[in-house]
Amino acid sequence: MGRSEHDPEPDQGGSPTFSPSAELPPLSAEDLAALRRLGERWQVSDAVRALPVDPQADELRPSAGGAPAPAPLFLPDRAGQLTATAAAERRDTPEGRAAGRVRRLLLGRPLSSASTLRERMPKVVALPVLASDLLSSVAYGPEAMLVILVLAGSGALGLSLPIAAALVLLMLAVGISYRQTVQAYPHGAGSYLVASDSLGPRAGLAAAAGLILDYVLTVAVSVTAGVAAITSALPALVPYTIPMALAVIGLLLTGNLRGIRVAGNIFAAPTYLFLVAIVGLIAVGLVQAAARGFTPTAPPATPAVEGLGLLVVMRAFASGATSMTGIEAVSNAVPVFRPVEWRNARTVLTWMVGMLIFLFTGLTLLFHLNGLVPRSNETLLSQLAHVTFPHGPWYWIIQAATALVLLLAANTAFNDLPRLLYFMARDSYVPRRFLHIGDRLALSNGLILLAVAAAVILVAFGGRTHSLIPLYAVGVFLAFTLSQTGMINHWRRHRGPGWRRRAIINGVGAALSAVVLVTAAVTKFAAGAWVVVLAVPLLIFLSLRVRRHYDRVRHALSLDTTTSPERPSGEGSIEEQTPAVVPQQVRHLFIVPVARLNQATLRTLAYVGSLGQPTLALHISPEPGEADNFRGQWATWGGHIPLETIQSPHRVIIQPVAEYVSTLRLRHADLTITVVVPDVVVEHPWQRVLHYRTEQRLRRALRRHPGIIVANVPTHLSV
Amino acid sequence: MGRSEHDPEPDQGGSPTFSPSAELPPLSAEDLAALRRLGERWQVSDAVRALPVDPQADELRPSAGGAPAPAPLFLPDRAGQLTATAAAERRDTPEGRAAGRVRRLLLGRPLSSASTLRERMPKVVALPVLASDLLSSVAYGPEAMLVILVLAGSGALGLSLPIAAALVLLMLAVGISYRQTVQAYPHGAGSYLVASDSLGPRAGLAAAAGLILDYVLTVAVSVTAGVAAITSALPALVPYTIPMALAVIGLLLTGNLRGIRVAGNIFAAPTYLFLVAIVGLIAVGLVQAAARGFTPTAPPATPAVEGLGLLVVMRAFASGATSMTGIEAVSNAVPVFRPVEWRNARTVLTWMVGMLIFLFTGLTLLFHLNGLVPRSNETLLSQLAHVTFPHGPWYWIIQAATALVLLLAANTAFNDLPRLLYFMARDSYVPRRFLHIGDRLALSNGLILLAVAAAVILVAFGGRTHSLIPLYAVGVFLAFTLSQTGMINHWRRHRGPGWRRRAIINGVGAALSAVVLVTAAVTKFAAGAWVVVLAVPLLIFLSLRVRRHYDRVRHALSLDTTTSPERPSGEGSIEEQTPAVVPQQVRHLFIVPVARLNQATLRTLAYVGSLGQPTLALHISPEPGEADNFRGQWATWGGHIPLETIQSPHRVIIQPVAEYVSTLRLRHADLTITVVVPDVVVEHPWQRVLHYRTEQRLRRALRRHPGIIVANVPTHLSV
Repeated sequence: MGRSEHDPEPDQGGSPTFSPSAELPPLSAEDLAALRRLGERWQVSDAVRALPVDPQADELRPSAGGAPAPAPLFLPDRAGQLTATAAAERRDTPEGRAAGRVRRLLLGRPLSSASTLRERMPKVVALPVLASDLLSSVAYGPEAMLVILVLAGSGALGLSLPIAAALVLLMLAVGISYRQTVQAYPHGAGSYLVASDSLGPRAGLAAAAGLILDYVLTVAVSVTAGVAAITSALPALVPYTIPMALAVIGLLLTGNLRGIRVAGNIFAAPTYLFLVAIVGLIAVGLVQAAARGFTPTAPPATPAVEGLGLLVVMRAFASGATSMTGIEAVSNAVPVFRPVEWRNARTVLTWMVGMLIFLFTGLTLLFHLNGLVPRSNETLLSQLAHVTFPHGPWYWIIQAATALVLLLAANTAFNDLPRLLYFMARDSYVPRRFLHIGDRLALSNGLILLAVAAAVILVAFGGRTHSLIPLYAVGVFLAFTLSQTGMINHWRRHRGPGWRRRAIINGVGAALSAVVLVTAAVTKFAAGAWVVVLAVPLLIFLSLRVRRHYDRVRHALSLDTTTSPERPSGEGSIEEQTPAVVPQQVRHLFIVPVARLNQATLRTLAYVGSLGQPTLALHISPEPGEADNFRGQWATWGGHIPLETIQSPHRVIIQPVAEYVSTLRLRHADLTITVVVPDVVVEHPWQRVLHYRTEQRLRRALRRHPGIIVANVPTHLSV
Repeated sequence: MGRSEHDPEPDQGGSPTFSPSAELPPLSAEDLAALRRLGERWQVSDAVRALPVDPQADELRPSAGGAPAPAPLFLPDRAGQLTATAAAERRDTPEGRAAGRVRRLLLGRPLSSASTLRERMPKVVALPVLASDLLSSVAYGPEAMLVILVLAGSGALGLSLPIAAALVLLMLAVGISYRQTVQAYPHGAGSYLVASDSLGPRAGLAAAAGLILDYVLTVAVSVTAGVAAITSALPALVPYTIPMALAVIGLLLTGNLRGIRVAGNIFAAPTYLFLVAIVGLIAVGLVQAAARGFTPTAPPATPAVEGLGLLVVMRAFASGATSMTGIEAVSNAVPVFRPVEWRNARTVLTWMVGMLIFLFTGLTLLFHLNGLVPRSNETLLSQLAHVTFPHGPWYWIIQAATALVLLLAANTAFNDLPRLLYFMARDSYVPRRFLHIGDRLALSNGLILLAVAAAVILVAFGGRTHSLIPLYAVGVFLAFTLSQTGMINHWRRHRGPGWRRRAIINGVGAALSAVVLVTAAVTKFAAGAWVVVLAVPLLIFLSLRVRRHYDRVRHALSLDTTTSPERPSGEGSIEEQTPAVVPQQVRHLFIVPVARLNQATLRTLAYVGSLGQPTLALHISPEPGEADNFRGQWATWGGHIPLETIQSPHRVIIQPVAEYVSTLRLRHADLTITVVVPDVVVEHPWQRVLHYRTEQRLRRALRRHPGIIVANVPTHLSV
C-alpha cells in the first residue's frame, strides 16, 4: 500500500466534507488587499458610529407588556457575539408557529452546527446502508439478462453462464478499480470529483449528469419494483400502487431529513434479512442440485422470436449489467466511515462486491440448473423460491425481504444525490442552495429535489417498472467509465510507485464499463435510453450556464476590481464606471411619490426630511384640475419639500413615475436615487385587493434600473 | 312638470358622473386645518430643498448614446407642470412593448382625460343601446309564461290573456314609476343610488347585490340563448357552443373597452332590425287573424301534469315578468343622454315601454289566436314565424334578428355593471380600483370583472340557458322593489307639489314589483332561485366588510387625528401614540445585514454611511469559526460601522435577523429602523433560483412590524 502516504491535492472548493460555512467562503488575499485599500478611503461622520441603543442589552428578550418574561431570543456567549436561541428562529405568525410544530414532530428538534456534523458509521452499519442498492439489483439483474436471451429461444438460455462469467469479470474489474479510487481520493471518491479532478470539469459534469439521472431513476425504479412486489402478493392493493409509492418516497424523504444515523438504523435489518434469505436460498438450491448430480433440468421449449446473434448477446450482457447499479455507493460515501476512512470504505467495498458476485453467480446458476424461464406474471427469483421451498414460510420470507430491500435501495440515492449536488454547488454548477445544511444537519434541498423529481417521474410513467428499466444503467455506466478513465490520468500524473499496474487495472475497468455503456445506449436506444442520451448533454449545458452566471456574479461583486477582465466597457456601463463604494462618493436624491396627503404620506415625508438629503416629491395627476388642487394642499402644508406634478392624461400611474425616475438617473449617473414609497400594510391578505399596491408595482418597474433604491415606509392598520 | 325645478341633493360621494379624479378625493376643511398645523411644526435642514438636478430640464427625453433623439417623455405645459407623453407610459421591456402594441391594435390609442369624457348619445342611438335587453326579452318572456300554464293542460293556455293583461298593468306601473325616478334623480337614477339615498345604505346594497347578480346573468343568459338560436339554425355548430359563447363575450368586452360610442354604433342596426321584423310579424299575423274573424285556433290537446291552481298562475305570472328585465337600463344611464338629460331619458323610457307593451301583447295574442303550444325543439316565436310566413326569407330574417339582438342584449349589462361598481366604489363598498378610468375612458376593471364572471358562470352551467333562467329576474325585481319603495320615501321627505300622487304611483309600482319578487323567489326557489337568495346577503356582507376596511384605513390615515374616535388605545398602539409626522421627531437606526463582503455589500454600506445616521451591521454566522473569520475581514476593511455578529447554530438566516430587528424596535418605539439590504438583481427570471433572495424574504418577514423600513440597494449584473 505504497500510496497511503500520498496526499491528494485538496480540490479547489475548500473543505472536503460538508461545512455550514461553505455558503460563506473566505476572501482571497487579493480581495483582502482590495478591501483594505477601500477601507482606507472611507470617510464618514461620527454620527454613524453613535448607536442610539446598545445592540446587546435588553433586546435579548421579546417585550411583553406585563406578561411573564418569555424565553430569551439571543444569548451573548462571549465578547461581541450573540447566539440565536430557538425562540429567535420561530416565525412569529400563528400559521408559522403551527407549521413549525408539525415540522418538529416529523423531523425532530433542530440540531446545532456544534453537534458532530459528521455522523460516522461503523462498518456493520455502513454495509447495509450502502449495499441495499447494489445487492437488491440481483432481484432483477439476472432476470433482465434471461429475458433478452429467451427471445432467441429456450436453447439460447444456456448462454447465460458465459455471459454471467463475463459480468463477474466486469464486477471484479470495476470493484478493484473502485478500491484504487477510494484509496486515491480518501476525502470522497465520487465519479464527479474524480472525473473533474483528472479529466477536467466537462468530464466531471458528464459523470454528474449521468449520476443525477441514475439516482432519480434508482428511486423511481426501486420504489415501483418494491410496490409491485407487494401488490403481486396482495392484488387487492393494485389500485393504490401510485399512492403507496408516493407514501414510500415521502417516508424516505422524512427519514433522511431527520438525519443519516436514523436512516442507518432503519436500513440495517432488512438488508441483512435479504442477504440471509438469498444466501439460504442459494445454499439449499445447491444442495438440491448436488443431490441431482448437478444435471440441469431442460427448460420448457420456447420458440425463438429473433435469431441468436451478437446483438442479442450484447443486449443480454448490457441488461445483466444492471445488477451492478449501486456499486459506486461506497466511493461517494468515504467520509461517512470512521477513521481511517478510506481503509474502512475499501473493506466494505470488497465485502459488497464479494457478496454481489456470490449472489449473482449463485442465482444465475440455479436458474439454469432448474431450467427456469422468465414469465410475465412471476419473477425468476419467486419461481426459484417456489421450486426450492415448495412448502413452509421460506417463500414468503424471501419475497418479503426482496420487496423491503428494493424499497430501501432507493435510500442509497437519498444518501448520494444531495452529496453530489453539494459538491457541484461548491463548484458553482448548481444553485448555491444545495450547499445549505438544514436544521437537522441534512442537505435538505437536495433531498427534497430528489423526492420531487422521483415522484414526478414515477407518476408520469404510471408507476410501471418495465417502462423505466431501459432508461436505467446508461447514466451510471457513463459515470463508471469517466471515473475509471480519470483514474488512469490520475496515476499518469502522479507516477507513484506501481503507477503503471494501477493505471492498467483502472484501464481495464474503464474499457469494460465503456463497452457496457455503449451497448446499453445503442441496444436500448429506442426503448427509452434516448431520454438519457438527450438529458445528459442538457444537464451539462444547464450546469455550464449556471456556472457562467455565478462567475459573472463573482466578477461583478469582486472586491479586487483589477482582476475583472470580463467587466464590460462602453455604453450601458455607467454604473460600473462609478461604483460608489465609499460614502463620500454618494450623491443623493430622494424622490417621494405622493398620491394624496394623509398620515402615511406625511410620515414618509417626515422620514425623508429627517435624513437631510435633497428630496423631490412627485405627484401624478389624471387631469389639470386635480393637479391644481393638489398643489394647493401642498402649499397649505407649507411646501417644505419641492413638488413636481406630472399630468398623466391617460390616467396611467406607475409607468410615468418609473420613466421619470429612471430617465433622471440615466442623465445623472453620479446620482443615487432613493424612491421612498408610502405603504399601507393591511392585516389580512384578502384586503390586498382593496389597495393599489403602488409600492410593489413601482418596485417591480424600477428593479431593472441601476442606481435606484426603493424603500417603503409602512403604515400599519393592525396596530 | 312642477318638479323640474326641484334640484336633488348631490349624493355624498362627489361628482355625479365619472371623473378620473374620483380616485383622489379632495381634503375636508378639518383635514386642511390639520395639515396646516402639522406643516407649521415641520423643521428640516435646507439641504432637503437643494436639488442636485433641475427636475424639468434635460430629463424630458430618454438618453440615448449617439442615437437620434427619441420622442420626449414629458412636456412642460405651464409653470411647474409636466405632462407625460405616450412615450412615458410605455413599458420599457421588449415584452411590455409587444403587449402594448397588441393592446393598441385591439383597443385603439389611449384617450386623454381632456377628451370629452361623457360620450353623449342622441335619443335614436340611446334607444337601441338601452332597449336591446328589454325588447329581446319578449323572445323568451311570453314563452316562459306559456311553458308554466301548459303544465295544467292545454285548456289552461287561455289564461295567458288575463295574465298578460296583469303584466301590461305591471309594465305600465313600473314604467311610470321609473319616469318619476329618472326625473327626480337626473344625475343617475339607478336602483343603488335611489335606494341608498332614500332607504339607507343597506337597502342600497341589497338593490346593488340584486343588480350585480342580474347583470352577470343577463350576459350569461343572453349569450347562451343567442348562441342556441344560432346552433338550432345550424346544428353543425353545436359542439362549439361554449367556445362561440366565450368568443361573443370576448367581442363584447373588447368593444366596450374601446369605448361606448363604438358600442352604440354596433348596436343600433340589429335592434332596429329586430323591431321591424317583430312589428312586421305582428302586423301580418293580425291581418291574417282578422281574415279569420279573430277566431282562435284550438291548441293541440295536452294532458295536464298538475292541477290548475293559484300557484301555477302565480308562477306563470312571475315567469312572464322576465319580459321586463332590462327596463331599468335607462334609469342607470341618464347621464349619457344629451341635455336636458332627464327629459331625453324619460322620453326614451316611454318609447321603450310602449314598444315592449306592443310587442308583448301582440305576440301573446297571436300565440293564442294561432293555438301555439311550447315545444322543446322550437321556440314559440319561431313557430309563429313559420305559421305566419310559411315561405320566403321572412322566417330567416326574424330568426337572425332575434339571435343577434339576444347576443347584443348582453351589452346592456356591460354598460351598467361597471357604472354601478363605480358608484359603489365611490362609497367604498367595493375595491377602489373600480373607480379607475382606463386609457380608453372606459371603466375597464368593471368590464373585465363582468366578462370573467359571466364566462365562469356560462362554462360552469355548460352553456345551457334553461339551467340559468330560474336564477334570473329575482335580482332585478329586488332592485325594482327597493328603488320604487325608496321613491315613496323620497316624495315624503321632499313634499313638493303633488307629492302624494307621485308617492302613490311609485307605491303601486313597488307593490307590484314586490309581488313578482316574492312569487319568483318562492316558486322558483328549488329550481335555482336559492342561489340568488343566498348570494344577495353574501354580497351585502362582503360590501360591508370592504366598507369597514376602507373606513379603518381612512381613520388610520386621517390627518385630523382629533376626529378619529376609533383609534385603539392601549397595548400594541405604541406606533399610533408616537407617529412621527415631522422630521425632528424621527430618530434613526440603520441596520445592514451583511452575509459577506463584496461590491454589493460595500456599496450598500457606502450608501448608508453617506446618510450620516447611526448604523449597525449585522452578520449571521452558522458557526463560531465563520464569525471570527468575518470579524477579521471587517477589521481589515477598517470597521467603519459597528458590527454585531449573531450565531445561528441551526443555520437559519432570515428569522434571527427579523427577530433581532423587530425586538429592537419593540423595545425602542421611538426609533425608526431602516433595514438596508444588499440586493443582486439578475438579468433573467430563471436566474432567481440561483440566489437566496434575502431582500424579498426579509421584506416579507418584517412587513408585519411597524416602524421598520426596508430598502434594497441593487447591484445589477446586466450592466
